[in-house]
Amino acid sequence: MERTEREAGPELARRLDAEDELAAFRQAFVFADPDLIYMDGNSLGRLPRAAFERTRAAVEEWGTALVRGWNAGWWEAPARVGEKIARLVGAGPGQVVVADSTSVNLFKLTMAALSLQAGRDVIISDTLNFPSDLYVLQGAAHLLGGRHRVHLVRTADGIHGDEAALLAALDERTALVSLSHVAFKSGFVYDAAKVTERAHQAGALVLWDLCHSAGAVPVELDRWGADLAVGCTYKYLNGGPGAPAFLYVRRDLQEQLSSPIWGWFGQRSPFAFNLDYGAAPGVTRFLAGSPPILSLLAMESALDPLLEAGIERLRDKSVRLTSYLVDLVDRVLAPLGFALGSPREPGRRGSHVTLRHPEGYRINRALIEEMGVLPDFREPDNIRLGLAPIYTTFAEVYEAVERIRRVLDEGAYRRYPRERLPVT
Amino acid sequence: MERTEREAGPELARRLDAEDELAAFRQAFVFADPDLIYMDGNSLGRLPRAAFERTRAAVEEWGTALVRGWNAGWWEAPARVGEKIARLVGAGPGQVVVADSTSVNLFKLTMAALSLQAGRDVIISDTLNFPSDLYVLQGAAHLLGGRHRVHLVRTADGIHGDEAALLAALDERTALVSLSHVAFKSGFVYDAAKVTERAHQAGALVLWDLCHSAGAVPVELDRWGADLAVGCTYKYLNGGPGAPAFLYVRRDLQEQLSSPIWGWFGQRSPFAFNLDYGAAPGVTRFLAGSPPILSLLAMESALDPLLEAGIERLRDKSVRLTSYLVDLVDRVLAPLGFALGSPREPGRRGSHVTLRHPEGYRINRALIEEMGVLPDFREPDNIRLGLAPIYTTFAEVYEAVERIRRVLDEGAYRRYPRERLPVT
Repeated sequence: MERTEREAGPELARRLDAEDELAAFRQAFVFADPDLIYMDGNSLGRLPRAAFERTRAAVEEWGTALVRGWNAGWWEAPARVGEKIARLVGAGPGQVVVADSTSVNLFKLTMAALSLQAGRDVIISDTLNFPSDLYVLQGAAHLLGGRHRVHLVRTADGIHGDEAALLAALDERTALVSLSHVAFKSGFVYDAAKVTERAHQAGALVLWDLCHSAGAVPVELDRWGADLAVGCTYKYLNGGPGAPAFLYVRRDLQEQLSSPIWGWFGQRSPFAFNLDYGAAPGVTRFLAGSPPILSLLAMESALDPLLEAGIERLRDKSVRLTSYLVDLVDRVLAPLGFALGSPREPGRRGSHVTLRHPEGYRINRALIEEMGVLPDFREPDNIRLGLAPIYTTFAEVYEAVERIRRVLDEGAYRRYPRERLPVT
Repeated sequence: MERTEREAGPELARRLDAEDELAAFRQAFVFADPDLIYMDGNSLGRLPRAAFERTRAAVEEWGTALVRGWNAGWWEAPARVGEKIARLVGAGPGQVVVADSTSVNLFKLTMAALSLQAGRDVIISDTLNFPSDLYVLQGAAHLLGGRHRVHLVRTADGIHGDEAALLAALDERTALVSLSHVAFKSGFVYDAAKVTERAHQAGALVLWDLCHSAGAVPVELDRWGADLAVGCTYKYLNGGPGAPAFLYVRRDLQEQLSSPIWGWFGQRSPFAFNLDYGAAPGVTRFLAGSPPILSLLAMESALDPLLEAGIERLRDKSVRLTSYLVDLVDRVLAPLGFALGSPREPGRRGSHVTLRHPEGYRINRALIEEMGVLPDFREPDNIRLGLAPIYTTFAEVYEAVERIRRVLDEGAYRRYPRERLPVT
């Protein structure tokens, strides 16, 4: 980011917005409350205008086409939408489908990978990974009778993944390496190409969780040589609450792998109603049951603005947004007791920036309830500010920091208890 | 059904509709094409008016509440909607949740059941069950290393389940009995209380698939003493294409069972972000990842008319509808070469009636493409007519039979090839 030294405050934000090539894409989204500074697009993306209309049309289709809708686009939707997502994650055709939730997809691919790795009994992950992913990995190991174990590489500072320790842990017992490409708490980005290559050298398979990457951070599954990947569609892909997830299986692995869930959408001839299962060719075999069509079609429509913007431009703006925020944190918030909870190097940072503060929980509540800022909180002291390059403006980043400053200046957070609410 | 002998043709249908206590519920559904005779509500139920509005509201909620929607009803939706469905399947509170697809739920419960049945290695099912269910059962057996096998009880006539053979197959090796309560092809209804009781006497667990029962046929999970159940919500529950499914786990089994998919929605404290999984108390542990909220809320709204009508009145009308249709088949269609592919005894029949005809496939196509009748076809020769008591009228049944008769009289089906289209 080029900033002239004299420029500061709202003027700089205004200039950066005026220069923003992607500014027009903001019009593709709904802004119900113009005063709200939404910093949680990394948890649930904003509503795209197209999704409103697409959902209406999908419901109407249900009403008019009735069961014929399955012949008029619903049946192919998991593969069709998968191909759209493939373009955002660097995957050639025939390797991505939409199915189930991230957890279920992670389970399917983990079980498939482990069954290919007979004689190897260790799954490597790290303490930066989503706990929800670790649960699934632990469950898979448990299901296999306790012969497998999940080895967690610890992070020293809670921010950066320890690639050296990770690579050193690889050995002839490593069946699978399963990591979040972008860490959910700190936003740390792994060198996925390197990790994949080194894991392969050790004979391990690699499964990437792309939940915090897809739509904001360049992903090059084919170029990395990745084996497997999963990801959700409701964060930077703006697919809507609980929209179905996606999965990737590298083409040359597909025929060697079998889903543990032998579902009829993954069956060779689902309408022959044969009594014996035969896996469908290709990645399709990883589909399970009927997909939730309303959620799936709403999500499909959300992908178009991202595809039009292009992942390179999205990443470019994302880096400029997060760098601008880091700069403001250093100048405005560090003196108030905030520490940066994300990597300082832009190349190692996803599209959110985490602020640590001993009173983080109460500050986060004050921001939400009094200040019209919507970040989110992750234990023990992290306030995450998600910057979605397709719709977040520099002016919003500036204003968010201003409002955080005000919460500290006025001590507004002291009005809130330290006890956690049940759901964040 | 009381029919005076002189009454026949459309007059009888009109009288039966005039006497129908549930007639007013038809207004709760959308009829986009008033000439269409929809006989496939057992595959995809009609669009309830309320679902249109509920989906619109849910999308608006996404736009305005944004991530706060999870605190405003989305998080609890799987349990809340589960309780509504519980009332339709005879389950007391705390035993039903909405999650995933039927196949994924069947997988979870099958794996859970098998892990509780150490030393027992046979799953009993039958050839009337959904092939999709058989695939999941086969996959579960495969996953456990080939020690388990799926034993399929054959049906003699393709219509009736062979309860005697089924009960005779139970022994000390039976781990699980998994059946469709209502058979998808013939509509045969198992005596679930008896099968459950006898399976329990043999030490087996029982898992019922309720896809063709819920919303049309009385289900008494608690009274049967059923252990486990799954079901979809897009057939007689009118939840919309691919709407998420439900599952039931009997209360006193819940703490003994573990889902094979250790998902964060089934975790004890999902927002503590602990690194180690601990199952949530109760049936909640069988949730996996984030549910597709738009599909789920649309489905929720579809349940209200069914709850208001009540399953007894729905069953009463369903029996009268199918009996009326069987009567017409005997009088009008049997002379044209049709055979009844469903049980003749109303107590053994679900809410669809299957007609068998050597030219069934071509007749079905002619009905759809020329006659404005929408049944569906199941190999090799079955035309299924689904009668949804909440909105199907006797006049529609009469008219459907008239149009079928016309297809045969005019030989319209001869215009269609015998080769199957890819999707039905």
